[in-house]
Amino acid sequence: MRALVVGGAGFIGSHLCDELVGGGVETWCVDNLSLGQRRHVAHLLGRPGFCFREVDVLDGESVRRLFGETAFDVVFHLAANSDIRAGTSDAFLDLRLNLLTTLEILEAMRGSGARRLVFASTSAVFGESQALLHEDHGPLKPISFYGASKLGAEAYCSVYAHTFGITTTIVRFPNVVGERATHGILFDFLRKLAATPHRLEVLGDGRQQKPYLYVSDVVNALCLVMQAQRSLFEAYHAAGEGSTSVREIAEIVVEAAGSPETTIIFGRDDRGWLGDVPRFAYDTRKLAALGWRPRYSSTAAVRHAVRRLLENGF
Amino acid sequence: MRALVVGGAGFIGSHLCDELVGGGVETWCVDNLSLGQRRHVAHLLGRPGFCFREVDVLDGESVRRLFGETAFDVVFHLAANSDIRAGTSDAFLDLRLNLLTTLEILEAMRGSGARRLVFASTSAVFGESQALLHEDHGPLKPISFYGASKLGAEAYCSVYAHTFGITTTIVRFPNVVGERATHGILFDFLRKLAATPHRLEVLGDGRQQKPYLYVSDVVNALCLVMQAQRSLFEAYHAAGEGSTSVREIAEIVVEAAGSPETTIIFGRDDRGWLGDVPRFAYDTRKLAALGWRPRYSSTAAVRHAVRRLLENGF
Repeated sequence: MRALVVGGAGFIGSHLCDELVGGGVETWCVDNLSLGQRRHVAHLLGRPGFCFREVDVLDGESVRRLFGETAFDVVFHLAANSDIRAGTSDAFLDLRLNLLTTLEILEAMRGSGARRLVFASTSAVFGESQALLHEDHGPLKPISFYGASKLGAEAYCSVYAHTFGITTTIVRFPNVVGERATHGILFDFLRKLAATPHRLEVLGDGRQQKPYLYVSDVVNALCLVMQAQRSLFEAYHAAGEGSTSVREIAEIVVEAAGSPETTIIFGRDDRGWLGDVPRFAYDTRKLAALGWRPRYSSTAAVRHAVRRLLENGF
Repeated sequence: MRALVVGGAGFIGSHLCDELVGGGVETWCVDNLSLGQRRHVAHLLGRPGFCFREVDVLDGESVRRLFGETAFDVVFHLAANSDIRAGTSDAFLDLRLNLLTTLEILEAMRGSGARRLVFASTSAVFGESQALLHEDHGPLKPISFYGASKLGAEAYCSVYAHTFGITTTIVRFPNVVGERATHGILFDFLRKLAATPHRLEVLGDGRQQKPYLYVSDVVNALCLVMQAQRSLFEAYHAAGEGSTSVREIAEIVVEAAGSPETTIIFGRDDRGWLGDVPRFAYDTRKLAALGWRPRYSSTAAVRHAVRRLLENGF
């Protein structure tokens, strides 16, 4: 079996490459190294069954050439703008990195024999909702460029599935945490604490309450749907049990960093930034029915990720 | 009151300009004249309160300049790729004309004082579904580039509404018929009959069954939501009563064109082209609650449109 991981030198992508190579899958890792980092896959270089290619998938011709030269049994599309807050200052950034990359990959797949796509999407497609979000929930009212661009990308996946026969599985994640993260709340907090150990400024009032998921559980979900999924177009929600408030996360980080004297300073808004969804909950029964059991609950994922980031650098 | 109609020289747009100007609204019509046609608004040129500007809204700088120079109380965005079948051969065409135009307009509105948008969307965002489609229906699984790009555009509308305060109303139409149409089934059939009067080839098996809406009823819906809508983000479905099969339409066209000897030849597929949704039905109670009453049922709309096209040319 030969897999292509687009965005394979990124946070989640590089963990997926580890898992696939470890499982004996011939793994092609493609990344433009703008957000992904070579050091995330450096340990895989030279291993049999692993191949790294520096490709920008916004360059349609390069993508088509890649698919023309090599037959892939499955394509994982994880390339995206992982810096969600940065996306708020440029309306077109997420459009390019999330939606246009997807369309270029889908077009290249249509023109080649590749017929199996796993697409990493996000809870942000829903916007703010009090409902327990199941996969078929409507209406979808994203409030961030990140969410809108991923919803647009999902829409194109639907077209290529139903009209051109590209079997596609969408897995929607909440916040993913773990080592090799280059953005996100844990990374932010640890950076801030390193700069000013006695003071941690939190974006928002600390009451944002969301599920967090450990990166290895995400990778397990991606590998599971790759094996299990046979219908033309399916979406799955993945999340650890429970949820964690930003206040709890700040306390966990302060404690783990050994800075008990630190004053945590909260903002006034109910959200961290424009487009931040302050609370949501996922119905994960559909993925559980495939046998997925996340190892870490939401708060355990946060604790474990903080430990790993402190051990391995951030 | 000053309104901007983007795509104002197009099929629906030019009828909307007629209605607004007739109602005493200062109306700015913007069109790049790629699909819109100057003759559709020629009768309005020089009338007080009407202003035509040739602008390509994909040119963000031109759009921002327009919004910088003039304050608009309401913006109607009707610019789109109206040739839905043509979109099937270029994956990026609908993305540019439907989604990117929307994002450029939203960005220009964000940067100016314009805070009121009415966006023309489509039943195609849903894909194939047996349900009576209400506005909050999920999941959305478009099967055409047209549907995916409009769904992506709706997603961006949601972001600008919820995060940047652009009050937005989305009105989703089924097939719209009437004079000045430059594409679509009636136009196709009339053209074919003019070329070969004894033979009408139909795309698909003729059993596609959809609601059709007369253009004046669409314009009434757009003007009604402009006046009625005050919440930040709302969607409405507009459709005439009932639905009409492609077979019926072929028979209506043949009869109206005075070609009773014409042989109608049906295809084998259940749909006219890749991405065609063969049947769907709308729940229109939300728009009816605002007082909207379409003048024409689906089949009456088709009959009336065929008459008007034959009278006025196509």
